[in-house]
Amino acid sequence: MAFEITDDFFENLTSLIQNSDDKAISKLFAEVHYADIAEVLDEVNFDEAIYIIKLLDSEKTSEILMELDEDIREKILENLSAKEIAEEVEEMDSDDAADIIGELSEDRQERVINALDDDELAADIKELLSYDDETAGSLMAKELVKVYETWTVAGCMRRIRGQAKDVTRVHSIYVVDKEEKLVGRLSLKDLIIAKSDQKIAEISKSKVDAVHVNMDDEEVAKIMAKYDLEAIPVVDDNNVLVGRITIDDIVDVLKEEAERDYQMAAGLTQDVDSDDSILQLTKARLPWLFLGLVGGIGAFLIMEGFQGVFSKYAALFFFTPLIAAMAGNVGVQSSAIIVQGLANDDVKGSINSRLLKEMLLALLNGFILALFLLLFVWIIKGKIDLALAVSVSLVAVIVVAGLIGTFVPLFLNKRGIDPAIATGPFITTSNDIFGILIYFLIAKMILGI
Amino acid sequence: MAFEITDDFFENLTSLIQNSDDKAISKLFAEVHYADIAEVLDEVNFDEAIYIIKLLDSEKTSEILMELDEDIREKILENLSAKEIAEEVEEMDSDDAADIIGELSEDRQERVINALDDDELAADIKELLSYDDETAGSLMAKELVKVYETWTVAGCMRRIRGQAKDVTRVHSIYVVDKEEKLVGRLSLKDLIIAKSDQKIAEISKSKVDAVHVNMDDEEVAKIMAKYDLEAIPVVDDNNVLVGRITIDDIVDVLKEEAERDYQMAAGLTQDVDSDDSILQLTKARLPWLFLGLVGGIGAFLIMEGFQGVFSKYAALFFFTPLIAAMAGNVGVQSSAIIVQGLANDDVKGSINSRLLKEMLLALLNGFILALFLLLFVWIIKGKIDLALAVSVSLVAVIVVAGLIGTFVPLFLNKRGIDPAIATGPFITTSNDIFGILIYFLIAKMILGI
Repeated sequence: MAFEITDDFFENLTSLIQNSDDKAISKLFAEVHYADIAEVLDEVNFDEAIYIIKLLDSEKTSEILMELDEDIREKILENLSAKEIAEEVEEMDSDDAADIIGELSEDRQERVINALDDDELAADIKELLSYDDETAGSLMAKELVKVYETWTVAGCMRRIRGQAKDVTRVHSIYVVDKEEKLVGRLSLKDLIIAKSDQKIAEISKSKVDAVHVNMDDEEVAKIMAKYDLEAIPVVDDNNVLVGRITIDDIVDVLKEEAERDYQMAAGLTQDVDSDDSILQLTKARLPWLFLGLVGGIGAFLIMEGFQGVFSKYAALFFFTPLIAAMAGNVGVQSSAIIVQGLANDDVKGSINSRLLKEMLLALLNGFILALFLLLFVWIIKGKIDLALAVSVSLVAVIVVAGLIGTFVPLFLNKRGIDPAIATGPFITTSNDIFGILIYFLIAKMILGI
Repeated sequence: MAFEITDDFFENLTSLIQNSDDKAISKLFAEVHYADIAEVLDEVNFDEAIYIIKLLDSEKTSEILMELDEDIREKILENLSAKEIAEEVEEMDSDDAADIIGELSEDRQERVINALDDDELAADIKELLSYDDETAGSLMAKELVKVYETWTVAGCMRRIRGQAKDVTRVHSIYVVDKEEKLVGRLSLKDLIIAKSDQKIAEISKSKVDAVHVNMDDEEVAKIMAKYDLEAIPVVDDNNVLVGRITIDDIVDVLKEEAERDYQMAAGLTQDVDSDDSILQLTKARLPWLFLGLVGGIGAFLIMEGFQGVFSKYAALFFFTPLIAAMAGNVGVQSSAIIVQGLANDDVKGSINSRLLKEMLLALLNGFILALFLLLFVWIIKGKIDLALAVSVSLVAVIVVAGLIGTFVPLFLNKRGIDPAIATGPFITTSNDIFGILIYFLIAKMILGI
């Protein structure tokens, strides 16, 4: 925490590397946390990064590799041999090891796994790679502390010393029966407080939360957040204990989920950040912009269709951006509330009751806004019929936009489609079209044209 | 986890309450996790909720209270006496206790604190309430396991049994010197593995991450996520250990932060969900809608100002929704990327280089989209001059919108203002106005009007 990356630091580092002063470089990084070293490597040029990775020992570099930006990690891995990657992997927990190896091409994956000295780790990694992405199986690690229900506390303390050495953070100790099925849990604290001749089965809690190995990772995150868990055991169909997920992985899942939803609402199709290439950014941004263009052309065609009225009511056309903007804003608000509610499992009850509530809300908001608009148009333009046409349309448009923004995410959700698609440009573009169409239809009715 | 809330369950519960069948109700909830009971209470009517709270024992209800929806908790607390609230509070950890008491009026806060039997808890709560919201001090709890560096392992094991009973999850044991200053840490695992005659100072790690009691809570969350921490000690100006923050509180901070940013981007001024009253929802939604209305009126005035050209180039006006929509979409994308980058501390380097990159990106995207538009207008309308005017304007508008969307959050951030304000309706409304203005100015130039 006291470590700050400054320009001086980089200059110093660069000159040390140029002089191949390995001793000084090792000393420089000796007390630095791997997450901070990863930040340094994200900033230095590529050759310097490779130099540092090859210099520092595997125990440190394995942790650093996991913290690196994905794109940089990919490039670094391309520059390491299968044997070198295997050396890094052997220092890692099985979940990180599987993640790293999973990022390689299938061909390289095989070579790295074959290069591992630790057969048990190789088998664990193969098992973890077999699980689908975004499931509990893909998140979990095989390292955990497990005891049999028939052991005593004293016997337990003796045996877990060995297991505990491999486990970075112990959390709960899991209790299994002789068929390896999960039957309970206890904490190190329980173990310390207990008397040495007690049986494990006496002091362990039999109620143990667990997740199935195929459960969706966002579901796992929800459960761990809801029950304030820091680790959760993973079981298979027969309730056999197969792994463990820890809260730090869940924190990553939550952050990625939040970023993905935010990006979807902004109309970005991929996870990009401002350091990505212009080409990558274009691939992420262009699709929804194109949809917006198509929607804009649709709006053009609608307005063109009504152009006959222009000579008499030119002002109608000048209000279209206002109508489209209000339709978009209301739609975005409605869909955001529904999508967040669905994510928090707060949305229960019938769709109809929600639509009714949205309609009343939209009527209220619409009336207030339409009143302002009415006064403005009437006072500034003096034409009461125009003012009425625009204001009444505004209310109708707001109601329809709110209903669309509420209904579409709920509808998608019921069909098993991610409701977050119905946010951002999707909603604004469709509401623009509906809004302008409704506007002109109502104006036509009111003005008798 | 096996607990599912069904309609049958509610019917059963309601009839049990009507019959005042306390024994059956207690049995019903005996094995249910407090987070699930909180969900039940969120659903039942208010009198039933109060009945259940008063029936179940304080050890359970204190946990349930913390999990309840804020609004429901507020109503329940209003219906409990100061003495009853004090009984609940005495079962809680100090951070939850301070949070609950902090939600009451100042008058009631005093009465509840005075009603506490546990003077130490009362003092702790008063201290915690003295810290500002959204700081490490407001998140932390006073419960932790602390040992002095001069103790031996054996002495330590004896003494911490007492401390450990009060601490829900131990994580690290903190090592202090005789002035209570934080000097190191060790884990229960380290303690178990060590020999009983070793001194704590020998086996503890002297490098211990800690946060200052006044640090911003989102900064604390970032640090804990970055270093994969599950608990972090909190110190004051003199490095005296004053408390501890655990990862479950950080998970809550992360979730609330994500929700707040998402809502800001959707133009909601308060944290609302679809179950709130129509009045509350209106208060959250109307402000930004009103801004949108004002922006729409601005667009109207601009278009009115150019109405002279309508007779010759009516189609120009029919393209305004397209221009405004594209300006809005591009602006939202740009600002989302910047705001996320700032939140992840990914945005370094000069503002100018980012603006230059955005300009090149916008030119590329703008050209591609403008090409499609050009072809459409030329082929459908046959007028090359109109097609050119609209397409060139589109490129210019996209460039300006992208620059605004990139610059404004960076500018706000440099001034210490939350950049997330510059997302959503703020960006779409301002970009609509700029977009339409630029459009007409360029069209005027190209068409020589």
